[in-house]
Amino acid sequence: MRESYREELHDINDCLVAMTNAVGSAMSTATTALLDADVTLADRVIAGDEHIDAVRASVDERCFTLLARQQPVASDLRAITTAMATVGDLERMGDLAQHIAKVARMRFPEPAVPQEVRPIFLEAGYVAESLVTKAGAIIAKRDVAAALELEADDDMMDRLHAQLFRELLSEDWPHGIESAIDITLLGRYYERFADHAVSVARRVVYLVTGERPLPAGAEA
Amino acid sequence: MRESYREELHDINDCLVAMTNAVGSAMSTATTALLDADVTLADRVIAGDEHIDAVRASVDERCFTLLARQQPVASDLRAITTAMATVGDLERMGDLAQHIAKVARMRFPEPAVPQEVRPIFLEAGYVAESLVTKAGAIIAKRDVAAALELEADDDMMDRLHAQLFRELLSEDWPHGIESAIDITLLGRYYERFADHAVSVARRVVYLVTGERPLPAGAEA
Repeated sequence: MRESYREELHDINDCLVAMTNAVGSAMSTATTALLDADVTLADRVIAGDEHIDAVRASVDERCFTLLARQQPVASDLRAITTAMATVGDLERMGDLAQHIAKVARMRFPEPAVPQEVRPIFLEAGYVAESLVTKAGAIIAKRDVAAALELEADDDMMDRLHAQLFRELLSEDWPHGIESAIDITLLGRYYERFADHAVSVARRVVYLVTGERPLPAGAEA
Repeated sequence: MRESYREELHDINDCLVAMTNAVGSAMSTATTALLDADVTLADRVIAGDEHIDAVRASVDERCFTLLARQQPVASDLRAITTAMATVGDLERMGDLAQHIAKVARMRFPEPAVPQEVRPIFLEAGYVAESLVTKAGAIIAKRDVAAALELEADDDMMDRLHAQLFRELLSEDWPHGIESAIDITLLGRYYERFADHAVSVARRVVYLVTGERPLPAGAEA
């Protein structure tokens, strides 16, 4: 029983890593759908979110069962409570990718993103995917050093977000209010995605060191 | 020991209820700060978020300690894992109130909210406060019927949100892009606040019935 308990803990961790892959893929596909006004890709992301939600529910249940049956203490207990918190972040990241896909779908066949800000979204998509890929490696290896480095990558997303607002507020933004609303919400979705990736990394720091991470995204 | 364990569980539940009060008060104050361009009130909300974060950390620690020392099963275990998830929602609601206060502060001494949409934000503030007040009562009484009713109140917030976009997109929006960005983000903050209140209510349904709630706010 003890052996299968260890195996179950390992397996839950593998599930979290697989979820980072699924969420990264959703984000990458959503960004392509957005930039190419590709409604087929957008629909794929929208439909795929159900799977991510199901994995989250399954991980939650398995963690609960482990707590009830094995009554773990110390680092095992921390691993389980951390997993329960981490799936919450990952599921939310899936939602945010879905929100981006929905904007692409809503504006189709027009592109939701005007030419001027395409490079910013291309880079935001790249940074988002890179953050969640690193978060996956951090979970897999319990890599505290890499977790602490992730904050710097998040700063890059904040800079992109600021750049986006500068574009929107430049004198010659010719795309009107509707487009400004889209861009504002899209910017927020990418930013929140990055915040959750940082939050995942901070949870690994807590898991390994026992020190509680600060909440991510406490800043606007 | 068993007696103090029960007391501790009760006390954690009281803490959650107190947090709903703190978060409701933050939201109410943030809305007033926003509508009255009152920077003193805005600063109060911004400074007060630290307290909400501290309560969250304390509840998290106490839940973890209960899990480690008491190794609860069944409904007690569910009460603890639900409390850990609920404090996450409540802390985030505090963040959102803080975000609203920061918009008020950023535009001071100008009001961030133009006259045309003041009634919508006034009502959004009222609905938000009502949702979190009801969520507090639902936690206190483990009231499943009231928890299920909360979804209808959230529909009201969705309607207000839709109304906000109609105003922004009307032909005669004279306030420019910067104001449209503010209004878009503010609308999002109120909507997310409501989503988290619904999520808290759903967690109580799970706690009492053992059926997993669906994730709130999965829709854009």
